[in-house]
Amino acid sequence: MTTTASSAARTAAAGREAFLADFRSMSTFGATAGGGVDRQAGTVADGQTRSWFRGLVEGHGFEVRYDQVGNQFALLELTPGAPYIAVGSHLDSQPLGGRFDGAYGVLAGAHAAIRLKERFTQGDETAKFNIAVVNWFNEEGCRFKPSMMGSSVFTGKLPAEQVLATTDPHGTTVREALEAIGTVGDFSLDVAAYLEIHIEQGRSLEDAGLTIGLVESTWGANKYEFVVHGEQAHTGATIIADRHDALLGASLLVVAAREIADEFSTDEHAVITSCGEFNVFPNSPVVVASRVNLLVDLRSTDPDVLAAADAELHRRIQAIEQRAAVKIERGAEHVWASKAYDEAGMKLAAECADALGLPHGTVRTLAGHDSTNMKDIVPTIMLFVPSVEGISHNEKELTSDEDMLAGVDLLTELLGRVADGEFVRP
Amino acid sequence: MTTTASSAARTAAAGREAFLADFRSMSTFGATAGGGVDRQAGTVADGQTRSWFRGLVEGHGFEVRYDQVGNQFALLELTPGAPYIAVGSHLDSQPLGGRFDGAYGVLAGAHAAIRLKERFTQGDETAKFNIAVVNWFNEEGCRFKPSMMGSSVFTGKLPAEQVLATTDPHGTTVREALEAIGTVGDFSLDVAAYLEIHIEQGRSLEDAGLTIGLVESTWGANKYEFVVHGEQAHTGATIIADRHDALLGASLLVVAAREIADEFSTDEHAVITSCGEFNVFPNSPVVVASRVNLLVDLRSTDPDVLAAADAELHRRIQAIEQRAAVKIERGAEHVWASKAYDEAGMKLAAECADALGLPHGTVRTLAGHDSTNMKDIVPTIMLFVPSVEGISHNEKELTSDEDMLAGVDLLTELLGRVADGEFVRP
Repeated sequence: MTTTASSAARTAAAGREAFLADFRSMSTFGATAGGGVDRQAGTVADGQTRSWFRGLVEGHGFEVRYDQVGNQFALLELTPGAPYIAVGSHLDSQPLGGRFDGAYGVLAGAHAAIRLKERFTQGDETAKFNIAVVNWFNEEGCRFKPSMMGSSVFTGKLPAEQVLATTDPHGTTVREALEAIGTVGDFSLDVAAYLEIHIEQGRSLEDAGLTIGLVESTWGANKYEFVVHGEQAHTGATIIADRHDALLGASLLVVAAREIADEFSTDEHAVITSCGEFNVFPNSPVVVASRVNLLVDLRSTDPDVLAAADAELHRRIQAIEQRAAVKIERGAEHVWASKAYDEAGMKLAAECADALGLPHGTVRTLAGHDSTNMKDIVPTIMLFVPSVEGISHNEKELTSDEDMLAGVDLLTELLGRVADGEFVRP
Repeated sequence: MTTTASSAARTAAAGREAFLADFRSMSTFGATAGGGVDRQAGTVADGQTRSWFRGLVEGHGFEVRYDQVGNQFALLELTPGAPYIAVGSHLDSQPLGGRFDGAYGVLAGAHAAIRLKERFTQGDETAKFNIAVVNWFNEEGCRFKPSMMGSSVFTGKLPAEQVLATTDPHGTTVREALEAIGTVGDFSLDVAAYLEIHIEQGRSLEDAGLTIGLVESTWGANKYEFVVHGEQAHTGATIIADRHDALLGASLLVVAAREIADEFSTDEHAVITSCGEFNVFPNSPVVVASRVNLLVDLRSTDPDVLAAADAELHRRIQAIEQRAAVKIERGAEHVWASKAYDEAGMKLAAECADALGLPHGTVRTLAGHDSTNMKDIVPTIMLFVPSVEGISHNEKELTSDEDMLAGVDLLTELLGRVADGEFVRP
């Protein structure tokens, strides 16, 4: 080993150790007893994580800015006046979420940018673009709905004013929450391309023994808010024939959603249905429910299958209304069509992975990500690293140190080549 | 009409008008926009209603006392040293309850006692007993569980210390709630018999064209708290085969409970099943539920049918655990056997109703009442007045003025004869 090679190896080892140390620090914010984090968007814990992240990147000479809905940008100016390559994910979490979901991608982006700063400012390479590491506001959408809120505003899919006026269950608005944690501004970013690395949250990479997933498309998703209307009554004194039980109606809807997933399961991943939120009113032990609000979503990679499953759900709703003597009202809906990521981006990422000797394959993402929004406005590349047993949105969520570091290495290589103009033209 | 008869008619008319005026005043406490009341046990609204009631009865010369769990006693001493005939119900309500449930019975008891006070103190009749009008604490059991809390302590079914330490969902104890509204003491009542009048909360009286129901028995009830344990996961990324969806398991349980009621419906009232409370964790839009806590109850007049329905529910739980890949844990249970009311009491009440020309019939009560507890320690008579369309635990709950006044007349007649020693011996 030459002195230079040995010095580079030492630098690389130090960079990896620094990443893991920063990951441990980051995971202390909103830490839960079960090894996860609780950092819902705009809470004190979210604010603390954002402050910590600001300190980290400012320590490396980045400049931190916020836009009007609290998206946090860590700017590395390499070529004054050039547009930015954005790389990032989100630091917010589910109420009892894992410490990898989103946070891994933001920190990986930051470390990739830190490594590239040394290369571009100390060597003789000149970057064609500047780099912005992004922490998107409220990707999870649990405290404030919908999910992917910050990137939806950034990509023009939601008006900023509507988002700022959105309230949490206690009536606090996004504007108030952002002002309370002091992370709101008026910055706007001139972005040329977007890169994101994220944990898979499924088990296909682990099952296939791969380290890197190159995301080729998102699933299509139809998400519905339903309100089941019954009639409040006494659980003891009201005979069955007189009941209009909203809880029975909503339960039948949950069961129907699963049955539809089963019916369309000829292909393993054909249709996935879920009900995540389910609120009963008045929810008293001796009262037949007058109302249930619930969310039902259907996802599929195939638009025709999704449409057929959706039609089947709506057919069944009529039978459920009759069975439970209730009315089912469909409220807000959010529909995402299945969409492909940039093919050239996947090819470039595969080349980088090959150069680093990392086993990779193509995957689809069932979950929504900020890249789902970004790919509709700029060329976008999305990468996955494995999740142990596919566990996610759970304190037990886990990605090995080795896989995390492989992801940072790949992202560094890829971000460097994208900043060099190999993906989009300056 | 003689002068005396005309004067008596005027007095009676004034008494009826006074009852309706007091009923209107009482209904302003915790009044809701929909014409009902929200006076959950131990809340500010419950405290205000109790204060108002205290003022009312003290204005008529009654003395008000509280026992250690906040049961409120309005004492009318007619025969110093004699035991008491208690008459009452409860002033607390469901979150969006009707203004008749419980409250009617307390006010009817107070007005019956007020009328009898005049008769026993101004005429030459001497009462064999004293009279206590009771407002039992927390009959509804929505804020603090279980229901019929105050009468359960009074009848020795629940230890006072356990009740005082019981918390609401915000961690406030019964002790703290009672102290905050200042209605707790150390009084104990020497009771010889108990009378209660209540709205039917069903529609059998209305359907049969009757004004008065003589309650012959309570239904048996098995009430269970179930916890469905799943595994928190991402709704998008987790394939169906990997899910342990607590919400699916709980929904299947709700559906199974209804199916059991249908299976045992050969007799119209054979089995009634209900799920009133249903809480999902973590209840986030994009998270498969890790846990659902729900209450399921089964009721029947026939102990054998109830046992068979209960066995069927428990058989189905195993299938549900398999279907949803969850574990279902049975927590607390409350079992009330079907029990008959005092036959001599029903006969006496029927005589009084006949004397007043009020059409009456025997009924069973599906709902639990404070009299359900009291009848296990002293001879007890329970009366119903009709509920329009059987609607109850609902802001639209309604009993006509005429039926309310008929009930007060009957209760006055009955309480007078019981105080005269016609039901229990002094």
